[in-house]
Order: sequence, then structure tokens, then C-alpha cells
Amino acid sequence: MLIGRVIGEVWATQKQPSHEGRKVLYVQPLALDGSDRGQPILALDAVDAGVSERVLVVTEGFSAMTAVDRPNSPIDMAVIGIIDTVELVKDA
Amino acid sequence: MLIGRVIGEVWATQKQPSHEGRKVLYVQPLALDGSDRGQPILALDAVDAGVSERVLVVTEGFSAMTAVDRPNSPIDMAVIGIIDTVELVKDA
Amino acid sequence: MLIGRVIGEVWATQKQPSHEGRKVLYVQPLALDGSDRGQPILALDAVDAGVSERVLVVTEGFSAMTAVDRPNSPIDMAVIGIIDTVELVKDA
Amino acid sequence: MLIGRVIGEVWATQKQPSHEGRKVLYVQPLALDGSDRGQPILALDAVDAGVSERVLVVTEGFSAMTAVDRPNSPIDMAVIGIIDTVELVKDA
Amino acid sequence: MLIGRVIGEVWATQKQPSHEGRKVLYVQPLALDGSDRGQPILALDAVDAGVSERVLVVTEGFSAMTAVDRPNSPIDMAVIGIIDTVELVKDA
Repeated sequence: MLIGRVIGEVWATQKQPSHEGRKVLYVQPLALDGSDRGQPILALDAVDAGVSERVLVVTEGFSAMTAVDRPNSPIDMAVIGIIDTVELVKDA
Repeated sequence: MLIGRVIGEVWATQKQPSHEGRKVLYVQPLALDGSDRGQPILALDAVDAGVSERVLVVTEGFSAMTAVDRPNSPIDMAVIGIIDTVELVKDA
Repeated sequence: MLIGRVIGEVWATQKQPSHEGRKVLYVQPLALDGSDRGQPILALDAVDAGVSERVLVVTEGFSAMTAVDRPNSPIDMAVIGIIDTVELVKDA
Repeated sequence: MLIGRVIGEVWATQKQPSHEGRKVLYVQPLALDGSDRGQPILALDAVDAGVSERVLVVTEGFSAMTAVDRPNSPIDMAVIGIIDTVELVKDA
Repeated sequence: MLIGRVIGEVWATQKQPSHEGRKVLYVQPLALDGSDRGQPILALDAVDAGVSERVLVVTEGFSAMTAVDRPNSPIDMAVIGIIDTVELVKDA
């Protein structure tokens, strides 16, 4: 899983019924200090996340399919939660 | 998932019936600003995409198999949609 | 699998029943000499690991789901053990 | 999937019946212009490919198992076709 | 799959019955010329490999589980063979 910030949305001419009624979100992965980490990714929305929210993203196909309760679907990443708090321990 | 642009096609002596009737497309992944991002990839076509179109690509095996409705096939990436619009939020 | 050190915990508004009662841990992967290796990752806790412990992390979806005995769940990484000893052979 | 050139073969004391009668090939991934791209990989042969041939490689476990018709086998990459033609579009 | 050299072993307080009776090996991936390639990985042993042996490692969860005949286990990499010979073709 990774933490990211929702930065946009993508509309596509889908031929996959599994994607109907779900948003495809552009998510910018974040480093521990909240700065950008690598390139943005695309994930199917399972929690109705909004732009600029910090979210929890699962990054594996079978995991992502079950997140939106649509097994056997072409889904490889899904937004599965909205972040409340991150607690880091100094000198862990 | 990632967004890419179709830049070519590959013909191979296939021994896999799962690939019959499907195009193997060369897809150049794109960054947010539309510039190239990394190396081109090969994906099975599930939506009859044409050269130069921007497409949505799923990059996991089980997901890709279901995209072309051929489970238990040697497919690890598939083109599953043609992009209409990308909306990005400034200062997300 | 990889070895890492628990450095924090994440609380999210989960909509996934699979995550209830399990901690989402921030884990810093470690190199052989114990130094940091790459960026921290997020993994579901299967062994009740505490902050600053060295842990064994499985990094594949289907594997991680079985680690917490919750198949068909959106889990892609899991902490599956607490490290006792690492034995390296010189001039292997 | 990726395109590569067969550059060698590996013999191992296998304890996996799934690998019997199949070659383990060393494959050098290729860039669009035919030059080397990254490090060589190891893939199980599903099409009786020979050294120096350009081949199509599937790079996911479940996909690779079905390519050689041996589900539930420890196979994560397989050579599934021999390349005939690659057609690239200028200014795609 | 990849080729590596066994460089050590890890003992952990496992809570996974799937790991009982199996060694967790530290394996250093090797390049074609036998030099080190990237960081060491951890893999479950399926062939009773010893330190300093060159081994064949499968790097996908479902594949690795079947290698040790323990499906539905938190295993993402497994040592599945001991290398006898690598034959490379010049000017392939």
C-alpha cells in the first residue's frame, strides 16, 4: 500500500462494465514528509475520495478487485481509504 | 493503470490461442504533461485502439486476462479504454 | 520478502472490513548492514509488531491476504514475522 | 509483455516436475531500436525458441503458468512467441 | 526467475505454519558475468540449498507457493533449483 494525494480524474471510453460508476483517479504518491514521491498513478476509486484528499492505495490486481467488490475485473490499483492520521516514531 | 499512446504493433508467431484475433500494441507511457515516460510496453488490445490514440492500460496479469475475457491466458497487460479527458487540479 | 524496521502507524477511514482490528504499519526496508534501503512502505500487521522492531514483510497480494487469513481482501503487503537473527556468511 | 533476444540457456538441478522437458532461457530485453534494455532475464520456453531469435516474453506468474499449460507451477516468466514483424508509426 | 548466490539465513519468530521446516535464505542476485546485481533478497528454500551455492529463484507469489507445495501461504519468493551450468552464446 502507499499514501498519495488525489490530483485529478480521468474519463475514458470504457468497454469494461467493472469500471462503470467508479471514478478513475490520478494519485500522486507521497513521501513520509508529505513531498511528492515519483510519478502519479491511476487507481479505481472504492471510497468516493475527493480531489486533494490524502488516500490509501492498494497496488495489486487481485487485491484491488476485491476492494471494489468486482472480482475478475481489469483493475490493478484501487483507493481503499482516506487517511486520518500518520504517526511516526523518532529514532525508531 | 497507466495512460499511454499507441505507437505501433507487433506480429509474432503465436502458439497461444488466447492471442488470436487480438492485436499486440506497442504503447508509450505518458507523463502528466503528455511527454514520454519511460520505455514503451507491449499490451494486448481489448478495445480496438488505433495508432496515435491515448489509451488506458491495465498492467497486471489476472486483471489483463479478464479485460479480454480470456482467463487462464498468458496475458500480462491489456489496453482497456480510450482516453476522452484528463482533468487535473492545480494546487491539489 | 524483505526485512524492515517498524517506524510508525497509519490511521485511515477504512471502508474495508478486512482491515478492521489490524494495524497499518509504516516499515522502513533495511539493507544487509542495517542501514535504510529505499523508501518506507505500508503493510498490514499480522503478528502484532511494535515500533522499532525488525520484521519480515511479504510483498505480494495473494500472499499477504493469506498471512492475515483474509482471502479476497485488498491487502498487498503484510508483516508476517519478527526477526530473531540474521546470519551472513563472509566470502559466500 | 516485452521483446527480447535469446542469448543462452541455463541447466539446473530442478526439483520441480513442471520444468521437466522445458528449457530455461536467458533473454536480453530489447529497446525499440533493437539495442539492449536493462539486464537479461530468465524465462521458461513455451515455443521451442532458439538462440538469437527475437521472442515475446510474458512476465507475470499466473500468465506464464498457463502459457506452458502447467497451472500451479513455480513459473514467473515464459517465452510465448517468436517475433515476425514490429511496425512502428513515426510521429504517433 | 533469476540466478543468485546464497549468502545467509534469517531466523524469525514466525506465526505462519507455512514457513515451519523451511529455511529463509538471503540470496544475492547475480549478473551474467557472476558479479553482484542489486540488493540481496529473501526467499523460502524449496530445494535445501546451502550457503555459497548458485540457485534459481522464482519471484512471484503464487508461483513461489506452489514451489513449496503450500498454496495459500504468505510466500512471495522461493529457491526452486540449484544451478549446474549456464551457457551463453557470443554475438547472439
